[in-house]
Amino acid sequence: MPKSEFYGKSVLITGGMGFIGSNLAIRLTELGANVTILDAMIADYGGNEFNIMPVNDQVRVNFCDIRDESAVTYLVRGKDYVFHLAGQVCHLMSMTNPFPDIDMNITATAILMEACRKYNPDAVVVYTGTRGQYGPSVSLPVNEEAPTNPKGIYEISNLTAEKIIKVYNDVHGIRSVLLRLSNIYGPRSQMRHSRFGVCNWFVRLAMDNQPIQVFGDGSILRDFCYVDDTVEAILRVAITPAAYGEIFNVGSDIPVTFLELVKVIIKQAGRGQWNFAEFSPERKAQEPGDFYSDVNKILRFTGWVPETSLEDGLTKTIDYYTKYGAHYWDTQFGRELINVQTAPLSTHK
Amino acid sequence: MPKSEFYGKSVLITGGMGFIGSNLAIRLTELGANVTILDAMIADYGGNEFNIMPVNDQVRVNFCDIRDESAVTYLVRGKDYVFHLAGQVCHLMSMTNPFPDIDMNITATAILMEACRKYNPDAVVVYTGTRGQYGPSVSLPVNEEAPTNPKGIYEISNLTAEKIIKVYNDVHGIRSVLLRLSNIYGPRSQMRHSRFGVCNWFVRLAMDNQPIQVFGDGSILRDFCYVDDTVEAILRVAITPAAYGEIFNVGSDIPVTFLELVKVIIKQAGRGQWNFAEFSPERKAQEPGDFYSDVNKILRFTGWVPETSLEDGLTKTIDYYTKYGAHYWDTQFGRELINVQTAPLSTHK
Repeated sequence: MPKSEFYGKSVLITGGMGFIGSNLAIRLTELGANVTILDAMIADYGGNEFNIMPVNDQVRVNFCDIRDESAVTYLVRGKDYVFHLAGQVCHLMSMTNPFPDIDMNITATAILMEACRKYNPDAVVVYTGTRGQYGPSVSLPVNEEAPTNPKGIYEISNLTAEKIIKVYNDVHGIRSVLLRLSNIYGPRSQMRHSRFGVCNWFVRLAMDNQPIQVFGDGSILRDFCYVDDTVEAILRVAITPAAYGEIFNVGSDIPVTFLELVKVIIKQAGRGQWNFAEFSPERKAQEPGDFYSDVNKILRFTGWVPETSLEDGLTKTIDYYTKYGAHYWDTQFGRELINVQTAPLSTHK
Repeated sequence: MPKSEFYGKSVLITGGMGFIGSNLAIRLTELGANVTILDAMIADYGGNEFNIMPVNDQVRVNFCDIRDESAVTYLVRGKDYVFHLAGQVCHLMSMTNPFPDIDMNITATAILMEACRKYNPDAVVVYTGTRGQYGPSVSLPVNEEAPTNPKGIYEISNLTAEKIIKVYNDVHGIRSVLLRLSNIYGPRSQMRHSRFGVCNWFVRLAMDNQPIQVFGDGSILRDFCYVDDTVEAILRVAITPAAYGEIFNVGSDIPVTFLELVKVIIKQAGRGQWNFAEFSPERKAQEPGDFYSDVNKILRFTGWVPETSLEDGLTKTIDYYTKYGAHYWDTQFGRELINVQTAPLSTHK
């Protein structure tokens, strides 16, 4: 992509201390943008100050909640681009307490869009939703016209945020791009628990030589997209006027089974173990089944394709955590694990 | 329908002082149910104490907000059926302030469903959403499989509420039916302003002999469903186990143009006048175009069909307001109108 597009531009990244947000912040800083990060640093969410170490003295970090209407409204002013990544992202939590999702993913998105409407209608907004917005796949690969019947409150809240932003695009003229991200993995994802980020969690287990549980027969299909490719997709849509008002999948149309994923992780890590585990009835009920993205639309609009193979992406991921793992989890690399067995199990998100 | 199904049953109607809620409360009382009404009586919403006059001494009325978690949680206990009709219903308001819709239509629905999950998982919930959840029609008539691309925050909030309730049905086993109501008209709708309930608003204008504005060439198609038929649909789905977890349109598959509607109203009222008016750009942008419902699914599941012709329904409506209009608007029947010209115009909802 032309590096100059973001040079000297002011950008706001909500959730910028988190996994994708921090990778985006680093890339935008490299491209010469003036980056402001907004993050609430909620415990057990993705925020980690170490994530932005490479650009720590070049970005402006503003700690506040995205539901803080006054602060959000102030920070939106004067920004050329707003990358809206902050939110509650745990499916399981949303099924026992729906209110954080409604507050952080729906109300906060409305606060942000109202701020744009009133004080910065020229901003371009990019929103990162989830492939979970589709729910069970009707046919594969899943394109952007597929029905949206999400199976959880978290996924519903993302769909609602998307639709709110779309209305602000269509009715109020706030140019916006709506992304539906598949399973993203790579450096800077939290590694403390398994509640979101299944691929990174498996990487941790392999690195710690702890057993990885593969549910059912391990044949469920997913597509996994490396975070650098994801960042590239986010940047491309932001500077593509034809993309404004459009919904795009961001993922890989090369599906792998969970069993294949686990085997590649163990191979690239050079250690690790796995075993089959039964689905619990609850887990089974909430498992949406096979999913992989049709990414032809974003290719047509922007030329983007995922360029990183699963092997390469996992190698880079493992290298990162081999160097910096101490900043992501306390007990690692074979030392005693305290929380793994009691932590809620991943739902293969 | 078998009248005995509701005999002696405890039911809660949120928004029960409003248009559809009060008609439902009266019918359920006739059928022998023990009716509790919950209503916040928010100014300019649909609540009107006169609405429930016929059953005033037979129902229990509880004034509180549906966002009142403690009260809602208490009132849900022990109910056999929960008819969830309360909410913000004005499209125009939602486009300048999205927060009441998020609070009242989304958060409050989650409060209600959490209350059911925790304290009354055996309740059957019926939710009344809107045909606006579809947005522009892809083909006509519109069935329940059609895409949902709503054009306003109000409509998005209804879709979100529907999806939340569906998840509680599917994951938590709270039996629920999701309705998408088309344009409903009839006795007990508010007549003070034009912000919702376009058919009733036109009835008022005709009765007051004030000009009815027909936008564009008046050729936009809608289906109008009489409130007694709507109540019958709500009751039938509630007692049809096969309907639990399902989405149903409630409307009429006999479309009429706005111009035809206005002419029938004026004919049945025996007075009134109309003229063409230009769409404003804002109104045009938010007008979803032709819509009429495919109601075959609810027919298949419950045998329900709309039985009241537009002529008969309008006659009953006009008769009601001729008798009781003083309880619905201050200046009527040709006396000076104070607010009509300054009130926001209907958006043909």
